Amino acid sequence: MEEKEISQAVISRLPRYFRYLGELKDQGIERVSSQELSDIMKVTASQIRQDLNNFGGFGQQGYGYNVEHLYREIGRILGVDQSHGLIIIGAGNLGQALVNYGNFERRGFIFKGVFDKDPRLHGKKIRDKEVQPMENMKSFVEANNIDIAVLTIPKTEAEKVAEQLVEYGIKGIWNFAHVDLNVPEEVQVENVHLSDSLMKLAYNISRSRKGGDSG
Amino acid sequence: MEEKEISQAVISRLPRYFRYLGELKDQGIERVSSQELSDIMKVTASQIRQDLNNFGGFGQQGYGYNVEHLYREIGRILGVDQSHGLIIIGAGNLGQALVNYGNFERRGFIFKGVFDKDPRLHGKKIRDKEVQPMENMKSFVEANNIDIAVLTIPKTEAEKVAEQLVEYGIKGIWNFAHVDLNVPEEVQVENVHLSDSLMKLAYNISRSRKGGDSG
Repeated sequence: MEEKEISQAVISRLPRYFRYLGELKDQGIERVSSQELSDIMKVTASQIRQDLNNFGGFGQQGYGYNVEHLYREIGRILGVDQSHGLIIIGAGNLGQALVNYGNFERRGFIFKGVFDKDPRLHGKKIRDKEVQPMENMKSFVEANNIDIAVLTIPKTEAEKVAEQLVEYGIKGIWNFAHVDLNVPEEVQVENVHLSDSLMKLAYNISRSRKGGDSG
Repeated sequence: MEEKEISQAVISRLPRYFRYLGELKDQGIERVSSQELSDIMKVTASQIRQDLNNFGGFGQQGYGYNVEHLYREIGRILGVDQSHGLIIIGAGNLGQALVNYGNFERRGFIFKGVFDKDPRLHGKKIRDKEVQPMENMKSFVEANNIDIAVLTIPKTEAEKVAEQLVEYGIKGIWNFAHVDLNVPEEVQVENVHLSDSLMKLAYNISRSRKGGDSG
């Protein structure tokens, strides 16, 4: 079936729908109107209808959306019905935090290995995996069906490591290094630039101060 | 001077301009054209001109932008010329990773304290600060001019803690808990929903597989 091109803005909102629908499902709620979703998600009902229309007719006039069905469909669209093998490069605090973040496995992201260049960390166990030297990366990626690499290394090293990972056939990079990576188009990159996010917060704080509460 | 309302989309891009300009500045480069910025940032030159026009005439025909000036102005707009006192709630791996992320201090975010409800962590030092019990939060926020609280706690606790922080007068919350917080309008929230980001990556991987390379 042909799926039309969907904007990155809509895609950015899908995980949030998925999260809210999962919560409704866990509460045993079977159906929900766009208005109810609007109330809990603080998004307009028309935005919700527009977004979900991108994926065909999940809603029915006068009935609303079937929660279980919509949850499963969005999950399928997001690809969380498939599992993704994942390795983490950088066994520092952030890398460890991500390994221990159990939620990912529930979504089909399977943590398979962790790598670091620091020999003092080699052999140390994070969850049930030993930290491996960078030299093992190539054979490990090739042997273990790894889709996704998570970069929690300094920006000075990130570009070189990303290049290697691309060469080894990785499909996606979840990049926490504070640099925009240059990779071929067919490799997907999702950036989490923490400083950028914190600066945006600072901006909004100083704006709201200037604006006062005259609104 | 009156500043016009600037869209969140533009604001989201400002930290990235700031980052690139900082790098140019560190390389001793004095001026840059929108075309040159376009090449290194992989954004169209017209987008750059449009974005920067929001903040008045930093560019000059035939000369380009003065790097140092533009860097300083964007920094001022972002509020990184002011310092922000910051506390971290949750002394787990993620909280520790953030504390140790030295870059924040360079941008004016001053780490002042860390709190956790787990008594086994109390007194433990992260950088030079002892982990404190949650009960100390109120007096600490009030006494130390704290603007920003960083939530690296489970979502089940995040709402209650956010409510308390608002009551204590916090101005902004940098939220890593996987929940959307309900706070008064004058309190700014910046979310880092890691699962959402990872799901977006998975989506883009599965799209690019389906699409093949017929483009």
